[in-house]
Amino acid sequence: MAEHRPGEFELIAKYFAPLTRGFPGAGNLKNDIAVLAPPAGYELIVKTDAIVAGVHFLADDPADLVARKALRVNLSDIAAGGGSPYAYQMALALPRDWTETWVANFCAGLDADQREFNLHLCGGDTVATPGPLTIAITAFGLVPKGTAMGRDGAKAGDDIWVTGTIGDAALGLRALRGDVPPLEPDERPYLVERYRLPRPRLALAPILRDVARVSIDVSDGLVADLGHVCTASGVGAAIEATAIPLSPAARRLVGADPALLPVLMTAGDDYEILFTATNDRREGLEGLARQLGFPLTRLGRIVAGSKVSVLRFGQPLAIDVAGGFRHF
Amino acid sequence: MAEHRPGEFELIAKYFAPLTRGFPGAGNLKNDIAVLAPPAGYELIVKTDAIVAGVHFLADDPADLVARKALRVNLSDIAAGGGSPYAYQMALALPRDWTETWVANFCAGLDADQREFNLHLCGGDTVATPGPLTIAITAFGLVPKGTAMGRDGAKAGDDIWVTGTIGDAALGLRALRGDVPPLEPDERPYLVERYRLPRPRLALAPILRDVARVSIDVSDGLVADLGHVCTASGVGAAIEATAIPLSPAARRLVGADPALLPVLMTAGDDYEILFTATNDRREGLEGLARQLGFPLTRLGRIVAGSKVSVLRFGQPLAIDVAGGFRHF
Repeated sequence: MAEHRPGEFELIAKYFAPLTRGFPGAGNLKNDIAVLAPPAGYELIVKTDAIVAGVHFLADDPADLVARKALRVNLSDIAAGGGSPYAYQMALALPRDWTETWVANFCAGLDADQREFNLHLCGGDTVATPGPLTIAITAFGLVPKGTAMGRDGAKAGDDIWVTGTIGDAALGLRALRGDVPPLEPDERPYLVERYRLPRPRLALAPILRDVARVSIDVSDGLVADLGHVCTASGVGAAIEATAIPLSPAARRLVGADPALLPVLMTAGDDYEILFTATNDRREGLEGLARQLGFPLTRLGRIVAGSKVSVLRFGQPLAIDVAGGFRHF
Repeated sequence: MAEHRPGEFELIAKYFAPLTRGFPGAGNLKNDIAVLAPPAGYELIVKTDAIVAGVHFLADDPADLVARKALRVNLSDIAAGGGSPYAYQMALALPRDWTETWVANFCAGLDADQREFNLHLCGGDTVATPGPLTIAITAFGLVPKGTAMGRDGAKAGDDIWVTGTIGDAALGLRALRGDVPPLEPDERPYLVERYRLPRPRLALAPILRDVARVSIDVSDGLVADLGHVCTASGVGAAIEATAIPLSPAARRLVGADPALLPVLMTAGDDYEILFTATNDRREGLEGLARQLGFPLTRLGRIVAGSKVSVLRFGQPLAIDVAGGFRHF
């Protein structure tokens, strides 16, 4: 016998409305609209990202991790914008074979991340699709008025910094596809989690507002996203390949196959934050890195021009940005 | 030879960024985030709706009308909430066979409606999907603080009003599917346009804030949406079937087949607005109806209880709400 499947209104009452508790503007999802009233002195920053099964995640990825990835790819942009999470709306297109168990696990994932990042669902839409599972989330963050961070304003001489480690998500996807050399026992779960569960660097947001000139989340690939900063700011950049922060697993794999490094620098899905700051901030940022719980690494500097150069001990490397994974 | 297809960044620069001109918070789409700062004394109302080819519109509907429908289904909720259009974000999932011509026409439709309704694109995401074209729009409206309209608060004795005419969109869909009796020459284009191009009743928004107790857009079906009001308000409703406003085309078809009336009352996709008001507002609303450019019709009244009764000259009719078209 087929599992009972709830209708739209039952899904809302049982699974989605509880995710709005504590956010009065959502009206418990009893109205079609939500009311967003930023506190005095704040404004909203907004980001919409969609993810599609088979394109941005694997159709058999655990439902709770799919939910958390859908939310976190947006929160990564809220962090890069200098914001703190506030609320989100979600359009969920369920494929023909959806089950209530899947929805329950999906919403449990959202609930876990709502608690971790202190935000609420405030509305959305659930539809049926003859195609793959598709999730579009519009996330709202709060920033003090006039302080939202962008990509425009980097100046020659700025240091270039990046959070965390680069390339783990790309290696995790390869591991899921069986497309990596043999891994040590603890490497596979680490890399797969880095692919499935981005870590939005929200602790950095107030620091960005204070010390950064520009910031961007690294989702298209380190070199491509640095290129976006250069284009928006009308500058060039020079980074040192040996400075790219790698996890122990990535470092071991790159050691065995140095040709992997340019792949990881262009692969995307890192959801780390790249930012620039004047070099008098260097000591302060090195001190902060010890308190943040994740690395802050200085990669190079902004230069005159319009190109991103990747150097290895000062010698230019050729990097094919288009070699990175593109979602589109 | 296959048509050249632009990449994501080319699509943004050529088609999407021009739709943001005039909205500073969009940063010309050069940042991943938009900044929304409602003017002093206002707050934002927000609605997300997704539409899927083959479910909410036909895959061969003209691209500009698909765009305008995607936007207007959201603007209808902004109107019901008492808001004026402000901005929107869009997640666009393009199927494998998309063409640049299709995107150009789609964006021309958005541009036309942006001018008509005075709002701007302020961000979004474009992704590839192996499934059908899917569009999720999150629309933002502005309302004076504390004045957003909802469904909760209708009281026994309130008059029930509805804008425009009911059932045209359902007949338009049937006409596209070849599932209607022979139509007069001018009926088919009228009904098809009513299906493809909702008319968000934004002129009503300030009037709703002034005179209505509750309001809702009629998208699930007149009887179902009135039921949502009753559930949220803890009341019942009694409406008169002979009072349901019908277009000349719908009136002729119902005259030939009276069994069609309950279908139209439950079919949905009307994107009209249903609201309640105290009966001392009756004369004022009848006067306003002459200035609005669309009908305002009094259908019945809110009563004690919890049920929606449909009467015909005072005698109850049985209406199967579930007989209406459901998107989910």
